[in-house]
Amino acid sequence: MGALDECHYNVELENGVNLGETMVIEDAVRVLLQGLGEDINREGLQKTPLRVAKALREGTGGYNQSVKDIVSGALFPEAGLESKVGQAGGAGGLVVVRDLDFFSYCESCLLPFQVKCHVGYIPSGQRVVGLSKLSRVADVFGKRLQDPKRLADEICASLQQSIKPTGVVVVLKCSHIHFPNFQSGIFDPNHQGWVKTSFKSGSGVFDNEKADVWTDFFSLLKCKGLNTEFVNSEGPICKSWEMGSSDPDMLRAISSIICSLGEDPLRKELLETPARFLNWLMNFKNCKLDMKLNGLIRNGNFEPSVEEQHICSEVNLPFWSQCEHHLLPFHGVVHIGYYSSNSVINPVGKSLLQSLVHFYGFKLQVQERLTRQIAESVSSMLGEDVMVVVEANHTCMISRGIEKFGSSTATIAVLGRFSTDPTARAKFLQVIPNIL
Amino acid sequence: MGALDECHYNVELENGVNLGETMVIEDAVRVLLQGLGEDINREGLQKTPLRVAKALREGTGGYNQSVKDIVSGALFPEAGLESKVGQAGGAGGLVVVRDLDFFSYCESCLLPFQVKCHVGYIPSGQRVVGLSKLSRVADVFGKRLQDPKRLADEICASLQQSIKPTGVVVVLKCSHIHFPNFQSGIFDPNHQGWVKTSFKSGSGVFDNEKADVWTDFFSLLKCKGLNTEFVNSEGPICKSWEMGSSDPDMLRAISSIICSLGEDPLRKELLETPARFLNWLMNFKNCKLDMKLNGLIRNGNFEPSVEEQHICSEVNLPFWSQCEHHLLPFHGVVHIGYYSSNSVINPVGKSLLQSLVHFYGFKLQVQERLTRQIAESVSSMLGEDVMVVVEANHTCMISRGIEKFGSSTATIAVLGRFSTDPTARAKFLQVIPNIL
Repeated sequence: MGALDECHYNVELENGVNLGETMVIEDAVRVLLQGLGEDINREGLQKTPLRVAKALREGTGGYNQSVKDIVSGALFPEAGLESKVGQAGGAGGLVVVRDLDFFSYCESCLLPFQVKCHVGYIPSGQRVVGLSKLSRVADVFGKRLQDPKRLADEICASLQQSIKPTGVVVVLKCSHIHFPNFQSGIFDPNHQGWVKTSFKSGSGVFDNEKADVWTDFFSLLKCKGLNTEFVNSEGPICKSWEMGSSDPDMLRAISSIICSLGEDPLRKELLETPARFLNWLMNFKNCKLDMKLNGLIRNGNFEPSVEEQHICSEVNLPFWSQCEHHLLPFHGVVHIGYYSSNSVINPVGKSLLQSLVHFYGFKLQVQERLTRQIAESVSSMLGEDVMVVVEANHTCMISRGIEKFGSSTATIAVLGRFSTDPTARAKFLQVIPNIL
Repeated sequence: MGALDECHYNVELENGVNLGETMVIEDAVRVLLQGLGEDINREGLQKTPLRVAKALREGTGGYNQSVKDIVSGALFPEAGLESKVGQAGGAGGLVVVRDLDFFSYCESCLLPFQVKCHVGYIPSGQRVVGLSKLSRVADVFGKRLQDPKRLADEICASLQQSIKPTGVVVVLKCSHIHFPNFQSGIFDPNHQGWVKTSFKSGSGVFDNEKADVWTDFFSLLKCKGLNTEFVNSEGPICKSWEMGSSDPDMLRAISSIICSLGEDPLRKELLETPARFLNWLMNFKNCKLDMKLNGLIRNGNFEPSVEEQHICSEVNLPFWSQCEHHLLPFHGVVHIGYYSSNSVINPVGKSLLQSLVHFYGFKLQVQERLTRQIAESVSSMLGEDVMVVVEANHTCMISRGIEKFGSSTATIAVLGRFSTDPTARAKFLQVIPNIL
């Protein structure tokens, strides 16, 4: 932890911008890339340090924002009931904004997690707040290194303080990436690489979790078809990740990134973060898998068949990878099509194909290359007519300035007959199930 | 059209920013508010001109962006197949990014429309483009006054030119607001205020609409459960809107807004835009509806009953309104609960309740006030125990910097027994169907 002495976590900001910050992160990313055994001058990686620095600064811009400034310009006078008994308008009557999507960086592992946020409040004092401010305030706390439970509490407390309503309620459904386990070949289609947890926070009349207002609030979520059941979550799933690698230079580099965001790496919750992120990263430098697979591929048992051949397929092989442009995870499924004289049995076995998918996944990658490499390898084993489709969710598309939450990417590689015969392609594409 | 002489549509930009722009828009919005008969000094409206100006400038920031700059830094060398026959990696093999959500301003009516965009390209020359650039480029053309078909063509052509791949394909599913018709009380739950249209554009190998690559592309959309059927769309639905109002000051104000965005109001497609937007706006100053309803409410036939009363409900009454903070539409459904001795027949009739909902909807509003006003009015007709829930989609939440595409807002007003009896509230909330 000697590195911490060198870093200045109470960074002096000039107009909210510290010019040294970006360079510190860039240097740290170069150390990490070298630790992964990568050539930092390779064209695909040359700008990765800059991209990571920009993404991190953009994704943690909430440190410099003030909730008071956001809310104070958007409190509007609004009458309550004139002569009737009850609550409505600016004097009671629940207001709920549902389904606000954003992302945050997990303080335990530095990876982004997705948040679906539902915010409600009960106006008082004959005033209401502009609806979009509920989203803006959620963003202020989202764009920091966060713990999901604290995120809910901070959004709630700051709205209570700035609007001073009868009560505030915040419910978050978080999706955190789980630690990829390449030994387990089992694919759970509901899981899709994300672990979902829920958190709630209430203030004012929502202080008491048994209060009737909670029932009203949950009813309004149910009207929208939203599940209001709660997993009893202790915190982010990454807290249970095993601690493995401990390269001191890389650990120091990660600490300096945390510093340059204006955080104190000695804060209790951040103490193990460098080790956790490093463990994640080193998972994508996987030598053991390499050796195992090389042996298998060299002994590949492909024998061209003279019998009539049919299109066979192996679909939904899960994979994990790390985008080399942003050092962010992407994951999804691989579908493999090939010709075989036996239309039922995969001659090399599903588990070998799965190992191969893991092998090409567990490295710094781009999806186009992953697709090509899998196709080429499968072709060595199962013949020259191979088609590979990769469908993936990229964390770099949900975080940074992009924030395209529902987006997904599909790539195709076609070899041999599949490259010339559109009917063969169409036939294979038809069997791909609609799960991603 | 005399106003056009005064405006300078070829605005001189200094560092991409014209300081006069915002003030021109603010002045124009004041004219529009006054034309609507509003008090521009009312607290809720004081900052509306500034908010509208900021939103419009942010939403049309694409005029000053260069696709070449975006793409040129993100073209990466990527190998194709090494020794096999086929297409993959940086030399063929379709790459598709699905479900990019953004919004654009309709050049025919100045209202924002939602876009779900699917982009594909086939790499060539051993290079691929960073996936997020497909989203960034779509945004450049989205953030302008647009026509959906031209939007698809412009995204496609600019990607073709900047990446120089084997082909580019763009499919857009657009949701444009339809013109609210308060005479039709019929609610189509699939419609929900949006008219959906589809557009496609292809270049290179996608030039030919019958080419096999189109089949591959559509198959990859189907894998994601996306409908690939096309409505034969002529263009935005607002082109068929009737032309009504023609206040010359207001028309001139709208023209000056178009000018200040850097557009030429004499461009063919923009000639009728001021009239169309004005017609939309004046729909929210609805005197005839006012008179009709006032008569009915004054003769309200509520007689307190001595028999045992049950909770009755009238759900999914559609409404339209215009957010007074941003001059942007919001629309949704109103659910009304009340007590009656007859649990089946609504004593005042569904159509009167619908008229009442329209009456309070068709003005500059905020959802909290709408909810309260409906509750108070219903209470004059159906007794003091009334509960109203309003569920809405706000255009101001999908456009501007917020862009929370899936979000929706629910508000509650509770009168009489509903304000004190949580069981009554829960009972009514249970009957609200899950449609929004």
